[in-house]
Amino acid sequence: MSDLRVLTGPEVEQHGNRDSCWIIVHEHPGGSKIILKYAGKDATEAYEPIHPPDAITTNLPVDKHLGAIDTSTVVKVVKEVTEAEKQRQALMDARPPLDNIINMHDFEVVAKAVLPEKAWAYYSSASDDEITIRENRLAYQRVWFRPRILRDVSSVDWSTTILGQKSSLPVYISATALGKLGHPDGELCLTRAAAKQGVIQMIATLASCSFDDIIDAAAPGQTFFLQLYVNRDREITRKYVQHAERRGVKGLFITVDAPQLGRREKDMRMKFVDDGAGAKVQENQKDVKKDQGVARAISSFIDPSLSWKDIPWFKSITKMPIVLKGIATAEDAILAYEAGAQGIVLSNHGGRQLDTARSGLEVLLEVVVALRQRGYFPNPNFEIYVDGGVRRASDVLKALALGAKAVGVGRPFLYAFCAYGQEGVEKAIQIFRDEFEMNMRLLGAKSLSDLEPEMVDASALTQHVVMVPQDNLYQNTYQPLAVAQFRSTKL
Amino acid sequence: MSDLRVLTGPEVEQHGNRDSCWIIVHEHPGGSKIILKYAGKDATEAYEPIHPPDAITTNLPVDKHLGAIDTSTVVKVVKEVTEAEKQRQALMDARPPLDNIINMHDFEVVAKAVLPEKAWAYYSSASDDEITIRENRLAYQRVWFRPRILRDVSSVDWSTTILGQKSSLPVYISATALGKLGHPDGELCLTRAAAKQGVIQMIATLASCSFDDIIDAAAPGQTFFLQLYVNRDREITRKYVQHAERRGVKGLFITVDAPQLGRREKDMRMKFVDDGAGAKVQENQKDVKKDQGVARAISSFIDPSLSWKDIPWFKSITKMPIVLKGIATAEDAILAYEAGAQGIVLSNHGGRQLDTARSGLEVLLEVVVALRQRGYFPNPNFEIYVDGGVRRASDVLKALALGAKAVGVGRPFLYAFCAYGQEGVEKAIQIFRDEFEMNMRLLGAKSLSDLEPEMVDASALTQHVVMVPQDNLYQNTYQPLAVAQFRSTKL
Amino acid sequence: MSDLRVLTGPEVEQHGNRDSCWIIVHEHPGGSKIILKYAGKDATEAYEPIHPPDAITTNLPVDKHLGAIDTSTVVKVVKEVTEAEKQRQALMDARPPLDNIINMHDFEVVAKAVLPEKAWAYYSSASDDEITIRENRLAYQRVWFRPRILRDVSSVDWSTTILGQKSSLPVYISATALGKLGHPDGELCLTRAAAKQGVIQMIATLASCSFDDIIDAAAPGQTFFLQLYVNRDREITRKYVQHAERRGVKGLFITVDAPQLGRREKDMRMKFVDDGAGAKVQENQKDVKKDQGVARAISSFIDPSLSWKDIPWFKSITKMPIVLKGIATAEDAILAYEAGAQGIVLSNHGGRQLDTARSGLEVLLEVVVALRQRGYFPNPNFEIYVDGGVRRASDVLKALALGAKAVGVGRPFLYAFCAYGQEGVEKAIQIFRDEFEMNMRLLGAKSLSDLEPEMVDASALTQHVVMVPQDNLYQNTYQPLAVAQFRSTKL
Amino acid sequence: MSDLRVLTGPEVEQHGNRDSCWIIVHEHPGGSKIILKYAGKDATEAYEPIHPPDAITTNLPVDKHLGAIDTSTVVKVVKEVTEAEKQRQALMDARPPLDNIINMHDFEVVAKAVLPEKAWAYYSSASDDEITIRENRLAYQRVWFRPRILRDVSSVDWSTTILGQKSSLPVYISATALGKLGHPDGELCLTRAAAKQGVIQMIATLASCSFDDIIDAAAPGQTFFLQLYVNRDREITRKYVQHAERRGVKGLFITVDAPQLGRREKDMRMKFVDDGAGAKVQENQKDVKKDQGVARAISSFIDPSLSWKDIPWFKSITKMPIVLKGIATAEDAILAYEAGAQGIVLSNHGGRQLDTARSGLEVLLEVVVALRQRGYFPNPNFEIYVDGGVRRASDVLKALALGAKAVGVGRPFLYAFCAYGQEGVEKAIQIFRDEFEMNMRLLGAKSLSDLEPEMVDASALTQHVVMVPQDNLYQNTYQPLAVAQFRSTKL
Repeated sequence: MSDLRVLTGPEVEQHGNRDSCWIIVHEHPGGSKIILKYAGKDATEAYEPIHPPDAITTNLPVDKHLGAIDTSTVVKVVKEVTEAEKQRQALMDARPPLDNIINMHDFEVVAKAVLPEKAWAYYSSASDDEITIRENRLAYQRVWFRPRILRDVSSVDWSTTILGQKSSLPVYISATALGKLGHPDGELCLTRAAAKQGVIQMIATLASCSFDDIIDAAAPGQTFFLQLYVNRDREITRKYVQHAERRGVKGLFITVDAPQLGRREKDMRMKFVDDGAGAKVQENQKDVKKDQGVARAISSFIDPSLSWKDIPWFKSITKMPIVLKGIATAEDAILAYEAGAQGIVLSNHGGRQLDTARSGLEVLLEVVVALRQRGYFPNPNFEIYVDGGVRRASDVLKALALGAKAVGVGRPFLYAFCAYGQEGVEKAIQIFRDEFEMNMRLLGAKSLSDLEPEMVDASALTQHVVMVPQDNLYQNTYQPLAVAQFRSTKL
Repeated sequence: MSDLRVLTGPEVEQHGNRDSCWIIVHEHPGGSKIILKYAGKDATEAYEPIHPPDAITTNLPVDKHLGAIDTSTVVKVVKEVTEAEKQRQALMDARPPLDNIINMHDFEVVAKAVLPEKAWAYYSSASDDEITIRENRLAYQRVWFRPRILRDVSSVDWSTTILGQKSSLPVYISATALGKLGHPDGELCLTRAAAKQGVIQMIATLASCSFDDIIDAAAPGQTFFLQLYVNRDREITRKYVQHAERRGVKGLFITVDAPQLGRREKDMRMKFVDDGAGAKVQENQKDVKKDQGVARAISSFIDPSLSWKDIPWFKSITKMPIVLKGIATAEDAILAYEAGAQGIVLSNHGGRQLDTARSGLEVLLEVVVALRQRGYFPNPNFEIYVDGGVRRASDVLKALALGAKAVGVGRPFLYAFCAYGQEGVEKAIQIFRDEFEMNMRLLGAKSLSDLEPEMVDASALTQHVVMVPQDNLYQNTYQPLAVAQFRSTKL
Repeated sequence: MSDLRVLTGPEVEQHGNRDSCWIIVHEHPGGSKIILKYAGKDATEAYEPIHPPDAITTNLPVDKHLGAIDTSTVVKVVKEVTEAEKQRQALMDARPPLDNIINMHDFEVVAKAVLPEKAWAYYSSASDDEITIRENRLAYQRVWFRPRILRDVSSVDWSTTILGQKSSLPVYISATALGKLGHPDGELCLTRAAAKQGVIQMIATLASCSFDDIIDAAAPGQTFFLQLYVNRDREITRKYVQHAERRGVKGLFITVDAPQLGRREKDMRMKFVDDGAGAKVQENQKDVKKDQGVARAISSFIDPSLSWKDIPWFKSITKMPIVLKGIATAEDAILAYEAGAQGIVLSNHGGRQLDTARSGLEVLLEVVVALRQRGYFPNPNFEIYVDGGVRRASDVLKALALGAKAVGVGRPFLYAFCAYGQEGVEKAIQIFRDEFEMNMRLLGAKSLSDLEPEMVDASALTQHVVMVPQDNLYQNTYQPLAVAQFRSTKL
Repeated sequence: MSDLRVLTGPEVEQHGNRDSCWIIVHEHPGGSKIILKYAGKDATEAYEPIHPPDAITTNLPVDKHLGAIDTSTVVKVVKEVTEAEKQRQALMDARPPLDNIINMHDFEVVAKAVLPEKAWAYYSSASDDEITIRENRLAYQRVWFRPRILRDVSSVDWSTTILGQKSSLPVYISATALGKLGHPDGELCLTRAAAKQGVIQMIATLASCSFDDIIDAAAPGQTFFLQLYVNRDREITRKYVQHAERRGVKGLFITVDAPQLGRREKDMRMKFVDDGAGAKVQENQKDVKKDQGVARAISSFIDPSLSWKDIPWFKSITKMPIVLKGIATAEDAILAYEAGAQGIVLSNHGGRQLDTARSGLEVLLEVVVALRQRGYFPNPNFEIYVDGGVRRASDVLKALALGAKAVGVGRPFLYAFCAYGQEGVEKAIQIFRDEFEMNMRLLGAKSLSDLEPEMVDASALTQHVVMVPQDNLYQNTYQPLAVAQFRSTKL
């Protein structure tokens, strides 16, 4: 952007109309209406949390950049404080004290209350009927413990390494996008808490904070991984990866389950709230795209042609270990190993991509069997991670007993900082610690290496039970049993 | 009807009593009461949506036709605008903009609100306890995906052929009856949208629009199939089939699961609403028939003696490929193949016939195995279709991965035009397109031929879980867990 | 009773106190309090529906009978018309017209509304947690149909024989007790309807109407079976059985699953409603018996020592075919066959005895296998019946396909006459007929002999799924998907 | 305490500040705040129910005891009668008469209403998501009966021996802690009822009543077992065990599943209610401990280093039979047998320790198989017990049929005395008796030795079904079936 000249506010104002915005509008994945709303004014406040910080450099050809702006001269859009916003603020003030937060669900319920509706919709949504996102959680509850007793568990240790890097927990902070929708400091809340607690953060391509801002905020020696959406323009990707390596990132997690971002209907419906009920005519194919919600709007640069043929190229541009994130079958786990990946993440993208895809935990079963059969596993140079649905240290221990090296946790940490900032994330990690201590003691495991498949009964994990039809007529006539009645009606 | 003379209104009025109506009443499957209500007046408005357009020519002997009428001379039944009708109209005006419709369920919820109660009851009802209609939907959710990654899916193609005819989707519009109950243009909404979107429409024997009206509305080269209820009078059926073939219909789908139409209790209860609470005495067997709802009233011509012996006759009267619609076992699939059918539809008639019959998707598993064992499948001259419960492109992809060539979709398109007319149907097809694009990319399938059984885990499909008894006493005493509480009660 | 002298009212009044009632009180299984309430007055109205008509001759030693009474001289207990009774009567007047009743559940919902609370509690209650009573219903829904098509089903026939007796349906009216609690004509409603419809009635030992009253009301040639609770005094049982045989009863169904009647808590709680909240002190063991509800109060004569050793004796006192009612395992089915029974009823007593006992339908599977293995079945001289949970003709067809000869239906006919008297029972039978016609056509069975195991998929029948624990925290935070919203809030 | 001098109230008052309390505060597992609240005053009322009676002698070094107090001179904390307390008392007065209590759930619902919130939270809570506590109950419902008929069951006998001691029921009163939270007489209610009813009581280490108070209240010849939490200071444990043996205790049940007490979130949340909403700052690690609820506060003395190596030492200090309580796998059952234990309790600590651990009943299946394979079982010198979730005699009979010798029942007896004191416990035992009589008759078992595995179908016991995802969109549009409507709206 160094070759752009500085514009003044009044100069920009003159272009607040369709004609002078035309080219920019034509390129914007979110459609023209939103751009015209801010045309000729300072859109930074609306722009910042939605757009990856390098969005303009990445997506907009240099010849469309008009130059830098002298911000003191610009007309601000007057921000209305809506009733919803006032209530949100009141809820913020009434949050439970952080001391009262005792599990991951508590963060989620607070975040749900204090987040702007659109942010909650973007974060919490998943694809289609949201069956996979719930399956992710439920899969852990289909695995039961077989705890061992009378082992000296006066001290237990849940530290480990991930891709050879030290981690105080067998958990890493998985990549989630657009953190500034939920907190003004965005992903930096994660960075600072991770530093304090010795946890590894995976930086998202679509983070609200720029990659460099995050790295700049790091503590000395703090470890990061990088989550990568591969750009249609490979040169951009090459520069991004090599820059990350130079700045010390220790692992490259290439997302392979998102040639296109999923249809997340909660997110999509937010669009209609914005527009009001005015739109009536069915619009043509191209414009329909603007109804696809935040997720689709920000992801048009992702390359759907990415394939196994590209893996050697990645190995040629970086020495970072390469991990494929989004493996969903034993077949692809084998291909990943044979392609030279140092790890795989068994994941369905938090339920946000293909609905009714299986949970990572379930996939783990078949992957471990298949890799073992070929002698590829266990293997000090190939690690298996799982993500999706983890809310308890007991979940993590189940995945580790079944063969995972570590587990990625995304939304819970995201909700923690939306609700309480950096302190929330620290508290979340602390809760995990407390749970690890208790659960390892109760399982009879002094260290993570004591975890073994016999400590769980996973026989129900592959049972895919779904909603069952009810006999409504029978239910209409059956009278449920009652308990003893008190004499007064006060009970 | 050309040999009937023209009657005038006053002439008709004289016959508004039991005596002169007697013969017509005696023949009417809906009972005499409804006919007497309109006796001597113009019943067209009440008659039209319920009766197949050729009902009189088909069902009423020619000597009972009194002749044509000079409509300007007839006493109209004054139509009262009821409160329910006013509210329905208000809801119609308040419909969500079509842009806001993002899945098939949205059409259904709008249709439910804006349809007259009787139309909704007829369309939505299914037989007995409605277990099969819900199973149809749930069966798809017992099949889970095993998506493949890192395949170049920059362009994906979901076009196919059905019975050798081009289709832009692996979906055809399945036959549904009495479209004018829901929209004044009835099935023509489907015809026009199908033309625009390159989709094949199956014309229903019991359509509100006449067969010729539909064909007349076709675009050049537009493809139709014909759904056939076989008449007790085979001559009528012969003429109907041969007429259809002459007018270019490309496939004959003979319904084989409806020797009698099912008891659909929602539909049956509508009758009582009409009658008010006056009727008290148990009436004799014959009159009881009028309580059977719309479905039974219109279907008395269907021949319950139809059997395998009739198939050669069908082959003798038409060159159209013959498909048997309503196969529910591997045994009958084999018989169908051996009888020379070019295809079968695995179907339970949208849950409207035998309750607790299995879903078409589940039947598909055993049918493919049995046909393969005999070397009958795969086979370019024998196609398997499935219908019932499809609401997502992902459902279609599951059926195709398991061996189906295409999938029939009925109610969703019906609800789409009840809610938004032709535009609704187009939007519904467009939603399918969007979902096909996304899901095929996420599955790793560039074209439909890439779909294979390994892409799904159907191990739970045959699990017939039903409602489970509850421990009401335990539930009365167990206190569910709560989350962290806000300080104010505003949350 | 012929040797008792006639007493007058005033004479009786003098004995309205503890002393002169003492001996009767001591014998009464319902405890002394209820007897003292009516002491010296005419208790017929309260007595009649609860007590089997031959209760006094059967249970009270002849020397305790005081003699006949001149009723015109007795002080009547003035019957208060309570608010509850008034509301019950208003509901009776507002019943849906019988025409509007379209399935068995409709009878139940009407009966529930119009029955006195105590009668409903007695009829509807089952033992302990009421898991078995609900399992009875649900078991039928775990069996799915495999219907056959293209068979000529223009006429279908569901008539059969049961124990060699003609029956117009493969259904008999199973024994239920205390019919006068629900209708002043009691079991005679069943008798009259059965005569009209060609259905066999099983007379209950604990019927409100006396055995002879029922037989006297029979149509010429009407068929009856007798359900027998075996008395501790075998002489009473001998006389009862031989009397029944003399009066033409065609089958003796000995109840073998009730050495003691189950704890039916809904029924038990009714006692407390009666007593008000006055009772406070824990009472001694003997008096506690009066809290056991109607069921226990009327059944103390049943012999818990009844065993296989008694079967030869039964065969020695009657030529009626003997059927054991209440078989619950393959082991006992074999013993029954080897003991010379001509039939067995697979039953758990309508869920009223041992809770978490399996459904008769499920037991049928193992019984047929075990009897076949020994060559005992199929066998023209040994029939298997099933009861419990049947609400649809489709349920009956499932049992028959799996090997049952006929099915017993109890509560639905009971509720039918509680709601609508004899006409209700006829309508219930008519509904079964309509359902048989439809379902046999849709199944492709022209007669009951066409039913075969391949017509059902019973693989899920033995799956004993129960209530599952919920993740309340997750459910507290998960936000369900919504559908498209209307612009106004009228929807 | 005999060497401490007697202090007066005013003397104590002078030390009502941080400085003079410092040492005590430092040692208190519940944190300093609660101690300062009562500093210089008589804390007996708040102290008594929470603290084991020998807590001070056990936990507080002798040199920290200040001496005995002259209670007449002390400033009492004025007890406020809160609204909640008043309502609780009103509910106490309105309790259902004990006669109306007919099952264990009735006690629970009464206890829930009349207990102080904190006591209910402590008693009813379980760990994490409370999945295991509910699984404990549900597991019994996945075992179905196969009852035998026509056995002479005129008299049935459910008496047995446990560890060689006579018991009138195959049930013992399992240890539960802190009984005085629920009733001023605490565990003595159990002791007195057990004496009257011939039932064995297991005395809890954490009972509110002191061990000696309980033994002193015993009837002649009354049998007790002792539940033991092993102290970090083994000398304390040695004295405690040997004292128990001297006082006649007949069995030592060492808890092996609690190296640390579980996180019970209901209990933990009570802490926040106490504190109000003032606390805001995240507190340091040590102080966080005070948020762990009652359970954690009272259990810090438990030794997490307890291991198999300690078993010989226990055998060296006592001749009482040793039973390990909390076995959860076949592997550990074998180790227990080989270590010389005379029994094991298959238990997950009432769901209060490791969540998603399996139920004791389910573990029983694999334990019996494994012990049989090694010839360790059946064995007159090695008994298997099960606890958790038992609410019915039928539950007990299922466990016994599968191999258990007796069953431990905790919460139901606890709730019985919270609701009705000693009489409640007697009534609870009487209900069990009634249920044993009925269920054994209905099962066809004259004595407990007649129970055999064939009397149950446990094939579903290992099915770990969990909550299933719902299709919310489908449910939003599906319209449930309705039953017949009454003419008025009174129904």
